[in-house]
This record gives sequence, C-alpha cells and structure tokens, in this order.
Amino acid sequence: MKYKSFTRESLLELEKIYRLNMINSISGFKPANLIGTKSVDGQTNLAIFSSLVHIGSNPALLAFIMRPTTVERHTYDNIRESGYYTINHVPSNRTDMAHYSSAKFPADQSEFEACGFSEEYISDFIPPFVQDSPVRMGMKFVEEIPIKVNGTIMMIGQVQHLHVREEALDQDGALDLEQAGTAALSGLNSYYSAKRLAKYPYARLGQPSKNELK
Amino acid sequence: MKYKSFTRESLLELEKIYRLNMINSISGFKPANLIGTKSVDGQTNLAIFSSLVHIGSNPALLAFIMRPTTVERHTYDNIRESGYYTINHVPSNRTDMAHYSSAKFPADQSEFEACGFSEEYISDFIPPFVQDSPVRMGMKFVEEIPIKVNGTIMMIGQVQHLHVREEALDQDGALDLEQAGTAALSGLNSYYSAKRLAKYPYARLGQPSKNELK
Repeated sequence: MKYKSFTRESLLELEKIYRLNMINSISGFKPANLIGTKSVDGQTNLAIFSSLVHIGSNPALLAFIMRPTTVERHTYDNIRESGYYTINHVPSNRTDMAHYSSAKFPADQSEFEACGFSEEYISDFIPPFVQDSPVRMGMKFVEEIPIKVNGTIMMIGQVQHLHVREEALDQDGALDLEQAGTAALSGLNSYYSAKRLAKYPYARLGQPSKNELK
Repeated sequence: MKYKSFTRESLLELEKIYRLNMINSISGFKPANLIGTKSVDGQTNLAIFSSLVHIGSNPALLAFIMRPTTVERHTYDNIRESGYYTINHVPSNRTDMAHYSSAKFPADQSEFEACGFSEEYISDFIPPFVQDSPVRMGMKFVEEIPIKVNGTIMMIGQVQHLHVREEALDQDGALDLEQAGTAALSGLNSYYSAKRLAKYPYARLGQPSKNELK
C-alpha cells in the first residue's frame, strides 16, 4: 500500500486548516448525532456532535467531548442549567440540515427551526427530541471530566429514555444502523451512508469469525 | 416513524446480553481500529477497539476507553510499560480477522499471527504497525483519566507517526474513508462499509449546506 507519511514534527509544519481536516479524520468513522437542549428561559438549541462514545451498558452511560468556549456554548450551558439533553442519530437523508446546525446562530434563534427539524416532547422530559431521528435518547447529565492536556471536557450522561426505529432492532438487541438509516461522519464535514457487511458471534479461541448474515 | 421505546427502569429489566447488544449500539457508528503493542519481553499484541475519539488537532491527540481488567489487559500493560502503541484502521475486507482478535488469546501468543495480520516496524518505534491498514498512527501515551462512575479509564495519546493511504487524502487534508476502505462498527459485532454521500463546507449563517462532491 502506498502511504503519505507524517511525523509529529512534520504535522506541526502543516497549514492549519489542512492539519485540522486531516487530524479530525484519522480516528476513522464517527457517529453523527444531534444534541437537543432547552434553556431555563425555554429557548431550544440543536447542535451536531461527532464524539459520542459508549462508556457502559448497565447503567447505560454515554460520553461526548466538547470545547465549551466555542459555538457549543449553548449546548453546554443548557445541559448544566437543566441537567438534561437529548441525543438523536442524524438520518442519512438529512445530513445537509444537520451540518448547518454547526453555524453560529444567535442565542435567541433555535437551530431546530433554522435547520428544518421538528421538536418532539415526551411526558415531562424537558429537552426536545428530533422528530424522525431513527435512534434517540433522553439523557440525564451525570458528570463532567476536564481533559487538562488541551482544555476540552468529557460530558457523561445516563440514558433515561431510548427510542429505536423498530425495523432496525435485531432479535438479540443489536441495532442494524443500515436499516435505521443512520449517517456516519468523518473529519469535520464528510457524511456517509453504510452497508452492513457482517455480524460475527462473540469471539472465542479456536473459532474464527463466521458471518451470521450469510 | 415507529419506535420501540425503553425507559431507564425498563432497561434494567432486560435480559443482560440483549441490553449489552442494544446499549452498545445506540451511540451510532463507531470507528474500527486495531491497537498494536509490544511488551518489554518482546511479545506483540493486537486488539480491536471501537471507542477511539478525537481530542485535539494541535497537538494531535486521540483517546480511547478501556476496561483494564478484561481481555484488554495486555494492551493496557504494554502501553503503560513501553509508553507507545499503534492505532490501525480495520480494512473492510478483513473484518473477520479483526473481530477474532477479541478472543482471549494466551499471553504468549500474538494476535498478529493468530488473526493473520503482518507486523510492520518503522525505524526505532517500538510497537508494530498493521501491514496494509489504510490509516495508521504511531502513538505516545500521554495520560490516563479514571472514569469513576463505572471504573473504566480514558487513555490519551499523541500522534508521533501518521501513515495515510495516498488515494484517500483529499486536497484539503480530509480523508475519504470510502476510498481508504476503512470499516465502521456498530454494537459489539456488526461491521459496515461506507459510501461518502456529501462533503459540506464550513457552516456559516445564511449559507445552507452545499454538497462539494456534486
């Protein structure tokens, strides 16, 4: 395979935007999620995040990384004030609208309306869900962990509500994200749809992986 | 859209494996990466991880989540002993071999050989890279952050070496992971290939997203 190679030193010398695009791409595929919040004044906010990561299944915990001093400020403030937020998978046929949520909207304008997403509320849960998102979670804020090396923070929350598109649920509880129609992301701005190639059983010694889908 | 719905309480009552499969799936697409390490005794190790997350571009920092008391123990020990590791994208045509690396191999057996991957070394960098992985990084361990709520830890490292498959590099530094042939993961065991649908410019107010690929 023919590679383009970089070292720690040559990365420092790259043009800033080039480096930003490349280093944001190297982790591989990222989840594309919209985080919905509501301020104490009742102003809703919606922002795209690509750093969601699984922390634990029981209790169900998810984390994401944020730089609270950028456009993500409203999301951060609303989560800390209200204690709640929603996480909504981006549908692969609405990536343009989801991406537009990362523009710097004024505080008194909701990205829901500006980006063409509809708010949906359930019982007494404060923040809005995204209508027609194939997988969505109502989250309770648990803890923020400072990442001192560069001033970012990890926000951890626990799942309170979970809505899963019925057709996407395998019999064993796993989700088929191709059926769900969930989008994937890479870097800062490339969006993908995905095709499920294989599902393998729990790996055991001496039993090489056998594709259950075939 | 028709949903199957769960609450915090109903999640607690689910059968354990069903819950594990479902909650591991809800974050959306995950990156599929193989982490390569070498012990001070010279024993190599290779393990699949799906929790890699971007922390910063300058310096280039990546984190992943681990439970150091499980099969991931060798990876953890080797990183802490040697201070270095590699991260290698899983090619979408070798997901079976990558998944098999999660079986409980004995300490004196290398998953490289057992799973059919070849080791590749560069200059004096200690841990092995995976030959023919489309995007791979040589990492220096920076810091581990305990996640007290469930005893997992976040491992942070800085990129020392970066190898990118030439055909996958866009002119602006972004990577096209469809061209790279990188696999995506969901849950514990579903593997996907992806098709790039769109690439949008940096989002600005009043300028709805326009697909640069069209």
